[in-house]
Amino acid sequence: METKTTLTLQDVKDARERIRPYIRHTPLLRVEDLDPVLGCAVYLKPEMLQVTGAFKARGAFNKILTLSEEDRKHGIIFSSSGNHAAACAYAGSVLGVEAYAVMPRDTPKAKVENCTKHGGHAILWDRNYPSRLKKVADEMKEHGYVLAHGFEDYMVMAGQGTIALEILEDEPQIRTVIAPIGGGGLISGISTAVKETDPSIRVIGVQAAASCGYYLSRLNGRPARMESLATIADGINSPGTSKNPYPIIEKYVDEIVPVGEADIAEAVRLIGQYAHLVAEPTSAVVVAALLSGRIKTAPDEKVACVLTSGNYDIDLIGRFYKGEEVEGTVE
Amino acid sequence: METKTTLTLQDVKDARERIRPYIRHTPLLRVEDLDPVLGCAVYLKPEMLQVTGAFKARGAFNKILTLSEEDRKHGIIFSSSGNHAAACAYAGSVLGVEAYAVMPRDTPKAKVENCTKHGGHAILWDRNYPSRLKKVADEMKEHGYVLAHGFEDYMVMAGQGTIALEILEDEPQIRTVIAPIGGGGLISGISTAVKETDPSIRVIGVQAAASCGYYLSRLNGRPARMESLATIADGINSPGTSKNPYPIIEKYVDEIVPVGEADIAEAVRLIGQYAHLVAEPTSAVVVAALLSGRIKTAPDEKVACVLTSGNYDIDLIGRFYKGEEVEGTVE
Repeated sequence: METKTTLTLQDVKDARERIRPYIRHTPLLRVEDLDPVLGCAVYLKPEMLQVTGAFKARGAFNKILTLSEEDRKHGIIFSSSGNHAAACAYAGSVLGVEAYAVMPRDTPKAKVENCTKHGGHAILWDRNYPSRLKKVADEMKEHGYVLAHGFEDYMVMAGQGTIALEILEDEPQIRTVIAPIGGGGLISGISTAVKETDPSIRVIGVQAAASCGYYLSRLNGRPARMESLATIADGINSPGTSKNPYPIIEKYVDEIVPVGEADIAEAVRLIGQYAHLVAEPTSAVVVAALLSGRIKTAPDEKVACVLTSGNYDIDLIGRFYKGEEVEGTVE
Repeated sequence: METKTTLTLQDVKDARERIRPYIRHTPLLRVEDLDPVLGCAVYLKPEMLQVTGAFKARGAFNKILTLSEEDRKHGIIFSSSGNHAAACAYAGSVLGVEAYAVMPRDTPKAKVENCTKHGGHAILWDRNYPSRLKKVADEMKEHGYVLAHGFEDYMVMAGQGTIALEILEDEPQIRTVIAPIGGGGLISGISTAVKETDPSIRVIGVQAAASCGYYLSRLNGRPARMESLATIADGINSPGTSKNPYPIIEKYVDEIVPVGEADIAEAVRLIGQYAHLVAEPTSAVVVAALLSGRIKTAPDEKVACVLTSGNYDIDLIGRFYKGEEVEGTVE
């Protein structure tokens, strides 16, 4: 029985036309120096060069641009302290829509400012995730804000999927696309766009082994959950699965690969050294997965690695470059 | 009396068509987060994303593609241990032309390998520059190699100048273009392309104060020379002026600005933090110049900074990111 989803290639194509004036078509960089290290023909999609320093701008713009006039007046709300919050605030400021981000009270000041500097409103609340979701619901009820969920929303997913269209346009010979899995919105959009274009192209998702709900679920053939350990890849903390992305991932993602902290740290360094890009650890997991040997590739296989973002404490990036240990955090 | 040069806008336009299949049109990145720090509307031209990790590929391809069939058979020679050597070796490997690089015997192994891994031939010789130039001449006499000088050659300059055409195509409202000056080949190409397109656009060259022959010469109204001090910007060591670039720079470069080591180090960090790009210090001098306050800009002035390259020891980049001191070297 085919899993029913409400995301299609056409949604992603529509998103692309819609967001085109607002986002960057980032280059697809061929980085030959990484071939011998990673064992394939390496292409990097550097979304740290995207507006707001992360791919999240794609989904945020597509969501806001598909709101009704009435909903735009109310403004959007979501739970995020990171790149989704910054992206929604930025897109909102460009399009004249207020954005409200429910964040844990102990969110680092820099992350709060990434949202508020674009005119976003930070609503500081408990760290506990269910409590924050309840706060979102309460705010919606009280003020009429519209939900712009970071990964459950199909229009957000469709926006993120535009990355895949750009990759296949720039290099139609790509045989494998690798992307991180956190909540699962990014890979839902990417895998839908790739598989409905050409089912023979592999789509591989990568999780931090420290918080790999989708990997565990794939192993078990049903939703599974773990207690997250500390990880440097703080943007893809994912102890379990999410409602809407899960069936898409089960349908379209060929493999899910977990990676350890040492490989992630080394990948941050390799991307800096050979591609001259500052990748945050969350972003570097795709390169870490190749480095770990857990993805089988032919030496001449064209592999596109989606580097999602570059927003991270630059001092810590410096520690990775120097080969120093960096402690992870638990969401 | 107008200074006579043999480089024109048309040379640069011709170069662009010639090298188009081989090089990347790098994106022009608008980095709003840097505006309040640098005092203008900041655009970065990230040539660390160019093939071989530096703009030098542009000049190398244009030089080789304008050689006669006979000259191509003989191969090219030049004195360089850095980005020009890697670029010539790479372009040579793509176009089937041998490349010979005369390098100091104590060149770091990584730099030698950047040339040899593309099939370039390293001829290890004295560190003394005149002695290396003599070696180049001797090799030319003995083997018939053709000179591909890194900054005296007009076809090399024309290739580098294609950066300016891309900048003005991507953002016609740019009012100021800032580029580093080492030998002077890059800014000769850029300033010719810019000023012969629109003389009202400012072109500003930046040198490390530790080795700023062009700056001193501008102050004196005639060629001047200094004894270079140690600098982290090892790619633009420039104690004096060079023959062919000098008149072009005098004609077309509006200002020459010297920058100190602390500003260069801070610029490396700022570019990593806000633009997510690994810039080598040589590359970061343009941002350092804005940071130093030595360039007058209006807050809404669109300023394009040419970031030339990203090839540097990644551990040292890590030290810059952590705010640690890094010692410079003397060429």
